[in-house]
Amino acid sequence: MVIYLDNNATTKVDKRVLDEMLPYLEDEYANPSSMYQFSVKSSKAIAQARAQMKDFFGAKSEREVIFTSCGSESANMAIKGVLAANKNKRHIITTKVEHACVLNLYQTLEKQGYEVDYIGVNSSGELDIEELKEKIKPDTALVSIMWANNETGVIFPVKEIADIIKSKNPETKFFVDGVQASGKLDFDLKSTNIDLLGVSGHKFHAPKGIGALYVKSDVIIPPLIVGGHQERGMRAGTENVPYIVGLGVAATLAQDALKYELTEIKRLRDKLETGILKRVFNARLNSSISNRVPNTSNIGFEYIEGELILLHLSDLGICASSGSACTSGSLEPSHVLRAMGVPFTALHGSIRFSLSRYTTEEEIDYTLDKLPGVIDKIVNLSPYQDELNHLRNSK
Amino acid sequence: MVIYLDNNATTKVDKRVLDEMLPYLEDEYANPSSMYQFSVKSSKAIAQARAQMKDFFGAKSEREVIFTSCGSESANMAIKGVLAANKNKRHIITTKVEHACVLNLYQTLEKQGYEVDYIGVNSSGELDIEELKEKIKPDTALVSIMWANNETGVIFPVKEIADIIKSKNPETKFFVDGVQASGKLDFDLKSTNIDLLGVSGHKFHAPKGIGALYVKSDVIIPPLIVGGHQERGMRAGTENVPYIVGLGVAATLAQDALKYELTEIKRLRDKLETGILKRVFNARLNSSISNRVPNTSNIGFEYIEGELILLHLSDLGICASSGSACTSGSLEPSHVLRAMGVPFTALHGSIRFSLSRYTTEEEIDYTLDKLPGVIDKIVNLSPYQDELNHLRNSK
Repeated sequence: MVIYLDNNATTKVDKRVLDEMLPYLEDEYANPSSMYQFSVKSSKAIAQARAQMKDFFGAKSEREVIFTSCGSESANMAIKGVLAANKNKRHIITTKVEHACVLNLYQTLEKQGYEVDYIGVNSSGELDIEELKEKIKPDTALVSIMWANNETGVIFPVKEIADIIKSKNPETKFFVDGVQASGKLDFDLKSTNIDLLGVSGHKFHAPKGIGALYVKSDVIIPPLIVGGHQERGMRAGTENVPYIVGLGVAATLAQDALKYELTEIKRLRDKLETGILKRVFNARLNSSISNRVPNTSNIGFEYIEGELILLHLSDLGICASSGSACTSGSLEPSHVLRAMGVPFTALHGSIRFSLSRYTTEEEIDYTLDKLPGVIDKIVNLSPYQDELNHLRNSK
Repeated sequence: MVIYLDNNATTKVDKRVLDEMLPYLEDEYANPSSMYQFSVKSSKAIAQARAQMKDFFGAKSEREVIFTSCGSESANMAIKGVLAANKNKRHIITTKVEHACVLNLYQTLEKQGYEVDYIGVNSSGELDIEELKEKIKPDTALVSIMWANNETGVIFPVKEIADIIKSKNPETKFFVDGVQASGKLDFDLKSTNIDLLGVSGHKFHAPKGIGALYVKSDVIIPPLIVGGHQERGMRAGTENVPYIVGLGVAATLAQDALKYELTEIKRLRDKLETGILKRVFNARLNSSISNRVPNTSNIGFEYIEGELILLHLSDLGICASSGSACTSGSLEPSHVLRAMGVPFTALHGSIRFSLSRYTTEEEIDYTLDKLPGVIDKIVNLSPYQDELNHLRNSK
């Protein structure tokens, strides 16, 4: 039995996505660039997926959609691309709570001589917009902010931020990491000042290994992968037809499921969250209650170790995580929770639960049934018995 | 009916490859980096595929294998990586007949101030090794040569070239584009001085959208896609588990099929080639007879247009190509055939036939049966009737 409450790490490929992909893994294997009748179906399938992604992004034109191999490629292409196209500008603004992958790239760029400002957040996980505003200067090539945080689900007001950036410096480009917002919010990018936005298919029921980058039509960047004419010269490599088809279908399904996400998934998430907070005396919510994507809950269990909780949950078939999968294995506490000033007593025992359209009421009930016992067992082994008793009595 | 004689453009995914992939597109969807039992199978599957690729490359260690999203990414990572790791060296040597994708990258690098020498070939398509030797200098960061040519199938002696490079400048790195040699030759890289070698899965019956890069253990390059810890920090992005599994299986199958490739596929290719040369008076072989991969034949049909031949063949269900799929749509004659000095009378009417393990005797017979009529029809429309008559009579 697997109860998968780690849908911010990855998601199950939707059966309807796989069904549409399969012909392109079987008999329709033509290279879409070829000159014969056999390649027409592959080539049309890509055009259709591009139209689907245009709708998903709310883009003005299909020409604003570039297929990539993952969210990390989308981010690297956007960030390195903007910097390469603006060689005389050396200043970047981002946040302290970006995905570890994006932060790693900025640390690499700092070593190359770029000046990077990292904007902080408050204890609810909300961005300090005033600080951001002050940091924008004539030399600012790029502002790079996630739409929704992968660990806490907190949503940043990127549409408003885009307007602020353009009013302070119209030349500054704005890249939004849309990976965790995909399928949870309506992008409608054409109505915004967002210049670039990256997504990753496997976060919304397409396979791992496909992503896309939105590049507003007036923004010019060079390709990251130089070579053939694919993607109008913006991304070389024979097109991954099956996954591109899958991404398009998944995007359409995600749009259709948006209401379900905002009602039913939210209801199950809230049931899980309030249930845990009610039943477990040392549990605390690591984010604001509002302003979150509907599927994510990050809960700190004070004075105990998160890895131990995860192992016990795994034995019960329950999959959850501490921090992001991309940093798992590291013993450092989450940089996101640290930036929020989560007390160290809860920092090491914080667990992210993230739901999807496949999460059932039974799974939530089972988790609510089993989790308190797991925490009890670990609490009894904690060296912090005095503090735990104090906490128990103060509730 | 599809008679697919364009296997250098892409190949059909082997049923055995797809069967092994499917569980990871269905129920085994865990992120391999996660901390629970559910992710163990995904993570082990990647380890197994890496061992399979180690065998395929003939590498010393699994650590020399990096999974990428395609051949173009492998080439970009290798080439940009070597240059970034050797910032003080500004000279590159490559050939005039590299894949158009690789040549595009070098043209971009020339614009960035790199000095690039392009080594020529003779009329058989063979590389001028003496010219190459002379060009290597202390400033040479990189030599970049394909193992087998995608248009003609001509094999370059890259193992000998590797020794020459290292004897002239041990610091110069050697990148081999192994895309068209995959499954057609035994790599055995540990016994060579080759530093980096890139492959693309869809050229040997894995899907489009997966590739790998061999990086010899003592060669240090930075990642192209910076971010998470995946591939030991060398390639960020959640692993494309299904395709990585597929690539491993395809690599094993390709090794098993090597003998079939060198005997049965070669027999069918030779039958097609000699049959065409015998039956079609204006046909000429655009390469040396020996020193070719076993599946490829490039034939020039003098005084007629290749695109017209392809269209007629497409009507008969036969898929072939002129040049590479990555440059199709362009009306420029092949840069490979031009470098070989193929006369302009044959340059525009050159067709590449490329076979695979799925090519049957019946398909070759059908093609041999139909092709002469197609050529006849087009010959009759050619404005070069005098030249054609002269050619007909001189045979």
